[in-house]
Amino acid sequence: MGDAKYVIGVDFGSDSVRSLVVNAETGEEVASGVASYKRWLQGLYSDAAQNQFRHHPLDYLEGLEECITEALAKLPQSICNNVIGIGVDTTGSTPGPVDERGTLLALKDEFKDNPNAMFVLWKDHTAVREAAEINELAKTWGGEDYTKYEGGVYSSEWFWAKILRILRVDEKVREAAYSWVEICDWIPGVLTGTSDPRILKRSRCAAGHKAMWHEDWNGLPPEEFLTRLDPLLSGLRERLFTDTWTSDKKAGDLTPEWAEKLGLPAGIAVAVGAFDAHMGAVGGGVSPNTLLKIMGTSTCDVMVASREEIGTNLVGGICGQVDGSVIPGMIGLEAGQSGFGDVYAWFRDVLFWPIEALGEDEGITEEMKKRIRSKILARLTEEAAAIDPATTTVVALDWLNGRRTPYADQELKGALVGLTLGTDAPRIFRALVEATAFGAKAIVERFRDEGLTINEVIAQGGIPGKNPFVMQVTADVLGMPVKVVKSEQSVALGAAMFAAVAAGQFGTILEAQRAMESGYSRVYTPEPHSVLRYKELYEHYLSIGEMLSSTLRSL
Amino acid sequence: MGDAKYVIGVDFGSDSVRSLVVNAETGEEVASGVASYKRWLQGLYSDAAQNQFRHHPLDYLEGLEECITEALAKLPQSICNNVIGIGVDTTGSTPGPVDERGTLLALKDEFKDNPNAMFVLWKDHTAVREAAEINELAKTWGGEDYTKYEGGVYSSEWFWAKILRILRVDEKVREAAYSWVEICDWIPGVLTGTSDPRILKRSRCAAGHKAMWHEDWNGLPPEEFLTRLDPLLSGLRERLFTDTWTSDKKAGDLTPEWAEKLGLPAGIAVAVGAFDAHMGAVGGGVSPNTLLKIMGTSTCDVMVASREEIGTNLVGGICGQVDGSVIPGMIGLEAGQSGFGDVYAWFRDVLFWPIEALGEDEGITEEMKKRIRSKILARLTEEAAAIDPATTTVVALDWLNGRRTPYADQELKGALVGLTLGTDAPRIFRALVEATAFGAKAIVERFRDEGLTINEVIAQGGIPGKNPFVMQVTADVLGMPVKVVKSEQSVALGAAMFAAVAAGQFGTILEAQRAMESGYSRVYTPEPHSVLRYKELYEHYLSIGEMLSSTLRSL
Repeated sequence: MGDAKYVIGVDFGSDSVRSLVVNAETGEEVASGVASYKRWLQGLYSDAAQNQFRHHPLDYLEGLEECITEALAKLPQSICNNVIGIGVDTTGSTPGPVDERGTLLALKDEFKDNPNAMFVLWKDHTAVREAAEINELAKTWGGEDYTKYEGGVYSSEWFWAKILRILRVDEKVREAAYSWVEICDWIPGVLTGTSDPRILKRSRCAAGHKAMWHEDWNGLPPEEFLTRLDPLLSGLRERLFTDTWTSDKKAGDLTPEWAEKLGLPAGIAVAVGAFDAHMGAVGGGVSPNTLLKIMGTSTCDVMVASREEIGTNLVGGICGQVDGSVIPGMIGLEAGQSGFGDVYAWFRDVLFWPIEALGEDEGITEEMKKRIRSKILARLTEEAAAIDPATTTVVALDWLNGRRTPYADQELKGALVGLTLGTDAPRIFRALVEATAFGAKAIVERFRDEGLTINEVIAQGGIPGKNPFVMQVTADVLGMPVKVVKSEQSVALGAAMFAAVAAGQFGTILEAQRAMESGYSRVYTPEPHSVLRYKELYEHYLSIGEMLSSTLRSL
Repeated sequence: MGDAKYVIGVDFGSDSVRSLVVNAETGEEVASGVASYKRWLQGLYSDAAQNQFRHHPLDYLEGLEECITEALAKLPQSICNNVIGIGVDTTGSTPGPVDERGTLLALKDEFKDNPNAMFVLWKDHTAVREAAEINELAKTWGGEDYTKYEGGVYSSEWFWAKILRILRVDEKVREAAYSWVEICDWIPGVLTGTSDPRILKRSRCAAGHKAMWHEDWNGLPPEEFLTRLDPLLSGLRERLFTDTWTSDKKAGDLTPEWAEKLGLPAGIAVAVGAFDAHMGAVGGGVSPNTLLKIMGTSTCDVMVASREEIGTNLVGGICGQVDGSVIPGMIGLEAGQSGFGDVYAWFRDVLFWPIEALGEDEGITEEMKKRIRSKILARLTEEAAAIDPATTTVVALDWLNGRRTPYADQELKGALVGLTLGTDAPRIFRALVEATAFGAKAIVERFRDEGLTINEVIAQGGIPGKNPFVMQVTADVLGMPVKVVKSEQSVALGAAMFAAVAAGQFGTILEAQRAMESGYSRVYTPEPHSVLRYKELYEHYLSIGEMLSSTLRSL
């Protein structure tokens, strides 16, 4: 034990940041810590009604220190002394403005309360107009379509749209912002004292999936395209970056200042950062011919394929394909479902309406309400699982939050088709569960149509460990085994794997995965009888979706 | 007052029978009575799981006496002495077997507990196979299609299907049943001592709408057709009837025995009976170019048209057209929606599921449950009415109980299309209300497509007085004024109008209507802005229905 080496994975989420200390040889998880973002929790700087969501950089810096020191406090000094590297994953695209020295503007006194000087969180949708302009220009300007490796549709959640939005609405930030950084670039820069935006090592994952960076056009889209989009962008390109890095590479060495703050040896490796879903896929064991699904309120689906398998193929209708964004040396492919657990939560809230609207007058206390609300999904699941499929006639479309993949279309909507007077709440819920599984199958079929092979699914995230019924239906609909990742911290584990490679413990990520993987807590095997039935129902799902699509867009 | 004449309308429903004493000159309602069916309420002779619903004739006879004596007990003797006639309406098709003297078999000792010897209630569905055979034969036997004036699809709820079913399954009843009667024929027969099935005055309404009786083929379908359907029917036709009567005619005079039982003058007129919806339409004020809707769990829609207006036209896709079934001398047309209030009740029950499933464990008592359940629809209505239409995207299909008109299709099902994560329970409810109004419009359009003119709608039944929101949406969708009948007993009032004509108080039903109508409690006028919006939404409803129909049938 005294000789074992350790690495730390740090996972920056939407509400909190987690650290996980892992044995770098075996993957054993020895301690973890978590810290909430204090300003965020107070509701500062955000405005949900306007879809404005901002993170103050101090939330990140304080959380980083807190969650790592919390984890290390649980461990003997000998382990702390044997930590050899730190890996960082974050939400994204979550860019923020920096000055010439790489200081986040909101860390400067004059900008400390200005939301436009902070990180623009992934789910911030203030840049809808800017995204539409990018899409319009990319399709019509006569040159290359720079969105093509990002699924062909640029989102308001992404880098350029958000930057342009802030430049337009905030003159002071516009004048002070020398460059822009993703949080997954900035944190390693802070830890290694290399914040200068000109030398900061930029994440291949973030740049390739969200900033329209690609080798085909030597990096970011050219100045001509950007200035046509808006003259406000003029000159920014050369203050951003040309090169990008995969996360098996070192961003730099931990500074003595941060080493002291955290209680770690100075000079240990800090890996280049990447997005949570991509590092999480690595932590969950993604490998060729395997679809990795992170299943929560929505899903993020990640695959890797060899350069040979993909060739010059452009996989249409997904969210992006980037060389090295997941496993260095392979093409990383990203897809996802806009609504998964959210769809179930929606139905729970519909059912909860009478209790919310009428309960108080009938003496139902807030405590009772909370308890009932918290039990609805479990009870629905239980009853839905017991339904004889022959007694239900409902087929649903799962697009209640639009559709991300295949072929992103946020104007699509959901449907419940085949209702009778005998259709009860569990039958509707069952149809919704089946629909989210059909949505998963549609993504698998999209990949297969492009010649990719998928033999099994690995599942992680909030749902797989919590709802066996949903997982069994998913396996039955997909007709493939679905393996549930054992680690509940597989995202941070993925970051730790990158730390181990960056620190030289392993030569490649594949080696790190083999040595450090957490294994699987359960495998859902498709039931042949259900597989057949769902094949038929899936055809209904497809044909209903096709018939209704144009109506759904117009409603 | 001492000189005023009175009539009594008696309305036999599914659970109870009501009487209404009415001033025969002014229509003023002076007293009413109601009696439940005692055996029925105890659940005797029926089996909901098998869709078997039977009424014992004693329930009718006892209820008849009870409800009339209850009403008369509230009145001075002078009024009782001035009653000049009785009219009777009933559910239907509700046939029962009689012996040669017209005695209902279940009134005989050997059959008193045999459900097959009783009246087969309208909603009894035990004869599904027999109905299918009738439809098959009518379409394929090479001769006339005897279902053509009954909408072209014979129902398991109707006369011949029910008779054939009983003949097949019950040998003893088969041997003892000389003939069969509808309850609307039998009650006037009992009151007038003319039960002998060979002289009993049969209702034009029942015969024409449910027994395939038509002048075109000289009455009931010919022996050849019936015996090809099943040799068990052989010889029955001539023991049934050839002539039928409209309800402005006298069935006979009240016998001294029943006069004494009821406390009425002997010898007063008893009108020929008819079905509740048809007499109800008369009571509500049906007249040419006006659609009368009885709106409850489902709807029954009734129109009349002059023989000239209809000509040789066969109105396709409705439930039947019969000369004199509503107003003598005019063609009565029947249509209806399979689900109306039932659709709202379905959604209430879906929403109630968490309280039912989880409430007890949380200390919600049965009393609290009942109260919450009883308030759900009112609160949904209130919130649905307040929704800005621009904020909702849901369109529903109202076929949760199949579709009766236009073009009966029990295999159709309902749908909710356009759901988003922002769709809450009131928005779903609003879509369901709009869908039931669209269903009403589809019927109106069916009539119009056949050249009939409809200028306004008269509404009666359980919903119109109870839910102004539903009524306003209906008026907006139809783009016509909807007048709500003032009388809450308009069905019995219609029966009383027929009594007044049969007794000679008026020469025609039109005169009786003019003198005795109750008027309208409220008129819903379409709001021009909503009319326009619903025109568009109705197109969506139609196109969604068309796109999904074949899928809905196969689910």
